[in-house]
Amino acid sequence: MRQRHKPWAEDFLKDATDLVISNPQDIKGKWQTQFGNDRPIHLEIGTGKGQFIATMASQYPEINFIGIDQGKSIIATAGSKVRDAGCENVLLILTNATVLDDLFTENEIAAIYLNFSDPWPKKRHAKRRLTYYTFLKQYQHLLQPKGEIVLKTDNQNLFAYSLVSFSQYGLVLNDVNLDLHNSDAPENVMTEYEERFAAKGQPIYRCKAQFV
Amino acid sequence: MRQRHKPWAEDFLKDATDLVISNPQDIKGKWQTQFGNDRPIHLEIGTGKGQFIATMASQYPEINFIGIDQGKSIIATAGSKVRDAGCENVLLILTNATVLDDLFTENEIAAIYLNFSDPWPKKRHAKRRLTYYTFLKQYQHLLQPKGEIVLKTDNQNLFAYSLVSFSQYGLVLNDVNLDLHNSDAPENVMTEYEERFAAKGQPIYRCKAQFV
Ligand SMILES: C[S@@+](CC[C@H](N)C(=O)[O-])C[C@H]1O[C@@H](n2cnc3c(N)ncnc32)[C@H](O)[C@@H]1O
Ligand SMILES: C[S@@+](CC[C@H](N)C(=O)[O-])C[C@H]1O[C@@H](n2cnc3c(N)ncnc32)[C@H](O)[C@@H]1O
Repeated sequence: MRQRHKPWAEDFLKDATDLVISNPQDIKGKWQTQFGNDRPIHLEIGTGKGQFIATMASQYPEINFIGIDQGKSIIATAGSKVRDAGCENVLLILTNATVLDDLFTENEIAAIYLNFSDPWPKKRHAKRRLTYYTFLKQYQHLLQPKGEIVLKTDNQNLFAYSLVSFSQYGLVLNDVNLDLHNSDAPENVMTEYEERFAAKGQPIYRCKAQFV
Repeated sequence: MRQRHKPWAEDFLKDATDLVISNPQDIKGKWQTQFGNDRPIHLEIGTGKGQFIATMASQYPEINFIGIDQGKSIIATAGSKVRDAGCENVLLILTNATVLDDLFTENEIAAIYLNFSDPWPKKRHAKRRLTYYTFLKQYQHLLQPKGEIVLKTDNQNLFAYSLVSFSQYGLVLNDVNLDLHNSDAPENVMTEYEERFAAKGQPIYRCKAQFV
């Protein structure tokens, strides 16, 4: 999902510091204050172009959403989508997920979404997968007790890997869906990647895993 | 998998009491003695026509196998297949899995195979699924510490249900395969149902779940 350098993205980020937070380390432990309320905060990691977070934020005004992505143009695209949707309950951060511990304190987050995370299919890249145990350790730290991770992907191997990784780390699986779009699953907000893969008829996998 | 009453099955069972054990309650706690050695015992529940257990027993002579099935003609068919294969390390039992506690004592079994178990798709029949928690409770009792359950199925819903059921009971998933026949999975011995479903191109799911 690399995009070429776009000057408008730089400009957008310079302008929109109330939406795309430029000093997230300084807000560690104070995110609810930043939102101006004490509602629960849900974190999406690898937000991409922002369709999921903008739609979720509109549907669930009683929840605060933070989206992070390491791509500069991508987070700017997400920002402009969120702005267009007029959501007050979204903040975005341009960052790599490896430094989550610097941005959030213990128990600051109520739920995490991993949507169509990069699969890193090669075994030697396993540690870059967002469900590798070093990431789970970070999630455990910043999530509240019984906090849930919701994973959606089209990638069969990443899904199988993640189920095992969650389970071996000690998370409990509360829900596993092996074909989300052809089941009686309740509410589902689609991401950009999800729309693309679903249009090709590929099954979408989803699971909910909870720290206990 | 109901079959019509077959007199040959009655005759076979009457003749083959050394292979299809007619008094399994009496052997509770003494299965290794029955096998005449102290090798580990693997249990297959819902053996069907016996291709899996006969092949496994030939490939792994250092393991004892017990197969159970509630179908009289089916267990007789399995018996004749095992006999033809000339395996000394197999015993069969005609029984319903609901009474496992009467047949095996604590720690008597090293591993359990559930191959293409009846899916019982209706929610009100969930308790008949061989991965319902009441069954897991029995498995936990008769399995040795760290004993493993290996589940294979073509049924997407049963598979998803079982992953959640295992996880919520406290088992850890050591392996999840969402398309066994199109992956680099190592050794796999096919069952009768597996051959039929695989020939139709349906994905075969497998997982290994361990008590901790
Ligand atoms: C395959 S895209 C999916 C985007 C979006 N979630 C969707 O479903 O349409 C993966 C996204 O995750 C971001 N990403 C991957 N690894 C990341 C990491 N370690 N930290 C932050 N963002 C990451 C990428 O920049 C990219 O935007
Ligand atoms: C769908 S068939 C699969 C047979 C074989 N495992 C295969 O893969 O070809 C399910 C088998 O499980 C047996 N079975 C189902 N429920 C059972 C139970 N509660 N106790 C014992 N056997 C059962 C049935 O009689 C049948 O032979």
